[in-house]
Amino acid sequence: MRALTSAVSLVVSLASLRASALTFTRLGACPSLGCVFPPDQASFLPGQYFDVRLEVHAPVNGTEAFNGGIPDEKFTFCIQEGKGKCEEASKFFKSTWSDLQTYNFTYYQDQFALDASSPTVVNAAARSLRGLSLKKPGTYKATLKYYNGQTTVATWFVRETPKTAAAKNVLFFIGDGMTQSMITAARVLAHKSVNGVYQSLMQMDQMEALGHQMTHSIDSYITDSANSATALYTGKKTTVDALNVYADSSPTPFDDPKFETIAELFRRKRKGPIGMVSTAHISDATPAGLCSHTRSRGEYASIVYEYLNGAQARTPEFHWPTSCEGPDVIFGGGAEQFFPGSGSYNGTDMYKAYAAAGYQLVYNNTQLQSAKNNQKTLGIFSTSVLPKWIDRNIYPKNLVGLKNSPLGDGGDALDQPGLKAMTLKAIDILQARSKKSGTGWFMMSEAASIDKMMHALDYDRALGELLELDDTIRASLAHLEKIGELKNTLVVVTADHGHGFDVFGSADTKYLASQTTDRQKRKAIGVYGDSGLSGYTMSPDNSSFIVGAQGPNFPVTWTPRYAFAAGTAAFPDHRESYAINQSGPRVAAVSPKGSTDGYVVNPVDQQAGFTLSGNLPPSEGSGVHSLTDVSVFANGPGAETFRGVYNSIDVFFKMANALGLGAH
Amino acid sequence: MRALTSAVSLVVSLASLRASALTFTRLGACPSLGCVFPPDQASFLPGQYFDVRLEVHAPVNGTEAFNGGIPDEKFTFCIQEGKGKCEEASKFFKSTWSDLQTYNFTYYQDQFALDASSPTVVNAAARSLRGLSLKKPGTYKATLKYYNGQTTVATWFVRETPKTAAAKNVLFFIGDGMTQSMITAARVLAHKSVNGVYQSLMQMDQMEALGHQMTHSIDSYITDSANSATALYTGKKTTVDALNVYADSSPTPFDDPKFETIAELFRRKRKGPIGMVSTAHISDATPAGLCSHTRSRGEYASIVYEYLNGAQARTPEFHWPTSCEGPDVIFGGGAEQFFPGSGSYNGTDMYKAYAAAGYQLVYNNTQLQSAKNNQKTLGIFSTSVLPKWIDRNIYPKNLVGLKNSPLGDGGDALDQPGLKAMTLKAIDILQARSKKSGTGWFMMSEAASIDKMMHALDYDRALGELLELDDTIRASLAHLEKIGELKNTLVVVTADHGHGFDVFGSADTKYLASQTTDRQKRKAIGVYGDSGLSGYTMSPDNSSFIVGAQGPNFPVTWTPRYAFAAGTAAFPDHRESYAINQSGPRVAAVSPKGSTDGYVVNPVDQQAGFTLSGNLPPSEGSGVHSLTDVSVFANGPGAETFRGVYNSIDVFFKMANALGLGAH
Repeated sequence: MRALTSAVSLVVSLASLRASALTFTRLGACPSLGCVFPPDQASFLPGQYFDVRLEVHAPVNGTEAFNGGIPDEKFTFCIQEGKGKCEEASKFFKSTWSDLQTYNFTYYQDQFALDASSPTVVNAAARSLRGLSLKKPGTYKATLKYYNGQTTVATWFVRETPKTAAAKNVLFFIGDGMTQSMITAARVLAHKSVNGVYQSLMQMDQMEALGHQMTHSIDSYITDSANSATALYTGKKTTVDALNVYADSSPTPFDDPKFETIAELFRRKRKGPIGMVSTAHISDATPAGLCSHTRSRGEYASIVYEYLNGAQARTPEFHWPTSCEGPDVIFGGGAEQFFPGSGSYNGTDMYKAYAAAGYQLVYNNTQLQSAKNNQKTLGIFSTSVLPKWIDRNIYPKNLVGLKNSPLGDGGDALDQPGLKAMTLKAIDILQARSKKSGTGWFMMSEAASIDKMMHALDYDRALGELLELDDTIRASLAHLEKIGELKNTLVVVTADHGHGFDVFGSADTKYLASQTTDRQKRKAIGVYGDSGLSGYTMSPDNSSFIVGAQGPNFPVTWTPRYAFAAGTAAFPDHRESYAINQSGPRVAAVSPKGSTDGYVVNPVDQQAGFTLSGNLPPSEGSGVHSLTDVSVFANGPGAETFRGVYNSIDVFFKMANALGLGAH
Repeated sequence: MRALTSAVSLVVSLASLRASALTFTRLGACPSLGCVFPPDQASFLPGQYFDVRLEVHAPVNGTEAFNGGIPDEKFTFCIQEGKGKCEEASKFFKSTWSDLQTYNFTYYQDQFALDASSPTVVNAAARSLRGLSLKKPGTYKATLKYYNGQTTVATWFVRETPKTAAAKNVLFFIGDGMTQSMITAARVLAHKSVNGVYQSLMQMDQMEALGHQMTHSIDSYITDSANSATALYTGKKTTVDALNVYADSSPTPFDDPKFETIAELFRRKRKGPIGMVSTAHISDATPAGLCSHTRSRGEYASIVYEYLNGAQARTPEFHWPTSCEGPDVIFGGGAEQFFPGSGSYNGTDMYKAYAAAGYQLVYNNTQLQSAKNNQKTLGIFSTSVLPKWIDRNIYPKNLVGLKNSPLGDGGDALDQPGLKAMTLKAIDILQARSKKSGTGWFMMSEAASIDKMMHALDYDRALGELLELDDTIRASLAHLEKIGELKNTLVVVTADHGHGFDVFGSADTKYLASQTTDRQKRKAIGVYGDSGLSGYTMSPDNSSFIVGAQGPNFPVTWTPRYAFAAGTAAFPDHRESYAINQSGPRVAAVSPKGSTDGYVVNPVDQQAGFTLSGNLPPSEGSGVHSLTDVSVFANGPGAETFRGVYNSIDVFFKMANALGLGAH
């Protein structure tokens, strides 16, 4: 395996690493030629399971070329606990090394190399130890020795943990991509202000604790939703696209060194029910992060298989048996991973597999509402991502013709639950399934399309999803109070990353549409004092505040004459008219058939608007994630620990500590 | 005065109101034809001084035309305390009404009317009561009756207040325009992260309390720095450009109904020393908000006069005698308001006036350091805004040739203190001047050019200023500890508004500069995993972290090959190369001489970059403020009250309560 691969296999291994732009790395969390996973600065809950993987690299060409391309296969690895001696790792862990693995992979050093199709080839040697844990809090020094004197040292921290649980249940809300600027904008959209004083507030505004968390990846300062979900659920930073594993350099996306999630820990230690609710396809990164392990978030079919069977059923040679054991509640979209076909695991009928495992199945809101509370429940309500709040509530005709039936029969999924309906039913099921045992429950509920609509530059729909999330939080707190669980339940609300969105003024949509040149249209924008007050909470004659059909915490109108003028830090070529897209979610940029030049303005989008040339690579057709810290709001037992500024990984430790999952 | 004014006076009164874009209002906080100031929902500290002003409007033309353009001069106004009867206001306050004032003003109803030069004319009748206060906490209902049955009702709240002070001193830091996204970016610039775990943090990250405040104006959801300073210092929302007054419709910017600031309250009740420090011209809105009252923040000369003499000295007919009585420390730029000339008050020598009032004067850092601590001190270090941290520390040659000597002699101001030097010296002076009396002190220290450089789209310099602010906070806490005042001092850090800034990836500046087309240059941007790690904290070979010449909390380099790719929600036409401007602050857009088409790309700015067409009105040549809530960080006695989400006006009440300024 040490010989260079052929040109064909070069292309294959290339595709498994990201090579779409610059700052390319040989392997994310491994700047030197000797790689230790878990890497330096990793933190663990006492007793949390994890794998160790060691790699030694020998680049054949490029600026890092070393040792004639021959990796050291005789590397050693030892662990030092506190001030003890450094003990050979398999002895320290009382575990057995995997066989030595040798292979090669390629990467591009920079965009110049990519333009020139000039990859760097790296030969690698690797070994793993699997299913380990460290029970004793403290500091551990792990040392890899290779190439006759080189060392890579990783310091690991096993954190102190409280001996008792403060909370019985955890309800964890994630507003995907929800930046503070969006929460502020949603407040302006939906809450009345009189002379600068709000008469009502977002539910998030009223939570007991406010914090900020830093969202960056292990090897890049911008994250995606897979590795940020991993951080929130496991206390481990990892690489873009990775779910609950450290991305290694080997070709398969299923053998990377993994670690245990809070859902798996809850199942293993508390033996209580678990719920996952999302408005995305349920195999999407944020729900997938609870109960799956792969370097490649796009392995949707395997992810859905793993929910039910655990990773060890799929690839037993790489995995140890801890899993979610089939979450008690799975509600969302993504039916194409369930009905038999090209999207499902080996083409099998996963609905049938879930039913055989004891799940009741529901496919629409009517069935959801009448489902039994004491049974494991799979609710899949459409193919792909669920329809948006604005389309369900304001423009329901947009649901017609989507051919998104969860049965895969090409019909339309018209009887749709929203996030609130799914979340409240999930609480009832988890509550019913834990009532006798008193185990409590753990649930994650995700407003996924805040992010998806921000990517699409469809700010109206993104903020509609955010208001639905806030309404869901409000209703959930009330429901928990009603069933007597509010005082027992830690409720945490946060985001997994930002988008560089903000509102900077208002746009006179009437004036803008009436003008004929781009520069004249831009005169429709009012900034500072001329931004005026919210047109969204006003009656049609702008004279008074009224409550709209969707209730007191939603806008009265989505089509005011004076609309938000909002923008984002990064965007493809597109147009802006600042009027809501009434026919369905926006498609701002398109890549014309046959063109190799990438994305350009969608000629049928926002036709009354003016044109903005993009600042993203032409290969990006939508907005991208941003750097900013995101807000954390918490309520209930343990909420006070969520105050202040901390890393995304700390959210895991705070939740795990509130549940007493590190106690032993 | 009721007759229509001539065309000439129409233009004059027009200029006094804003009419640059849309959502134009007749008068900000007065949607009906009867105006009450303080308006509905106003809050007061017990005993805080304020004016009442009532206006009745009769639009002559436009959609609001009423009563043949004749305003009701017989309006009445009464105050109801709690459930008592509504008592005529002059009797209730034991005060005397001003004479009835009649005049007219004009405004444009929308951009169509402005394009057509078709203003709406409004006749007005008005009266005022001045120098009032409400001592008893509770709810007051103020009712204006006019036009034979119409009413405008304002509900006022006098807030409960603690009887004792928790804090002896308050040190209030304002990062002008400092959004959380900038704090996050500054952290990446200057603090080392190993595998996603920071090895050091911003000082702001480590404060005891974290909060968010909503920054909007009274009559628009986007604020400027004048009305946001007013909110932070007085607990009153007002209009863009207004300082510690409610903007009325009369022509003079000095007669508007005013209210007392925290600095004036501190002087009146505690009799302790006050400090104002800013890297802007010291007459700029954020320092001016401490000790001046005008509807028009651009009245720089009057503002500097008012610092020394109080508003009552300038226009005694409109004012009651409360003032800062000459702040003990005034450090900043803006020498053109001090040396005699067109920028100073009536052309007088304000340096001489300050000296005559007992101030020691310092003009550079050497003099600042050797100044006595027991004397009132005026330190003016340049004309206009002070040079930026990056120019002082990284590119000091940029200070040469600015002709910004504080003496107005056309020389260069080369011996410049930074924010840290000014703030530490200010602490020493305030401490020395209150040591015997034990009054404690109040100081505001502003990092003004975070905002100014964000406006300029010069993100590097903006973040340099932010890091200087953080370094100043760190040094101030250490200094307070050293002089034994840390435990007595409430330290609050916040911003007055946001900018829609965020980092969305990294840019390979070498690749970008080497390409010839805009679309090819955009391929230099790496997003998500390709954003990579911070180039700013790396050694030149990217292999290790080192400490740079400016210390451990600043970047090692400002010119990494892989630089931040950052953007903002709103911008004029400009170019981006993502490389720092080494010759001084950026000028991104220019309005060519003789052109009436507004701002276009500056042909000499970022010449290696690609072009972005703007989304602002062509009349705007720089970035603008944004909507997002901003962060609040607090330390010391009273800090815990700054947790959570609240309105900007609440910052005043929290600080005033910590100082016991409402006790009576």
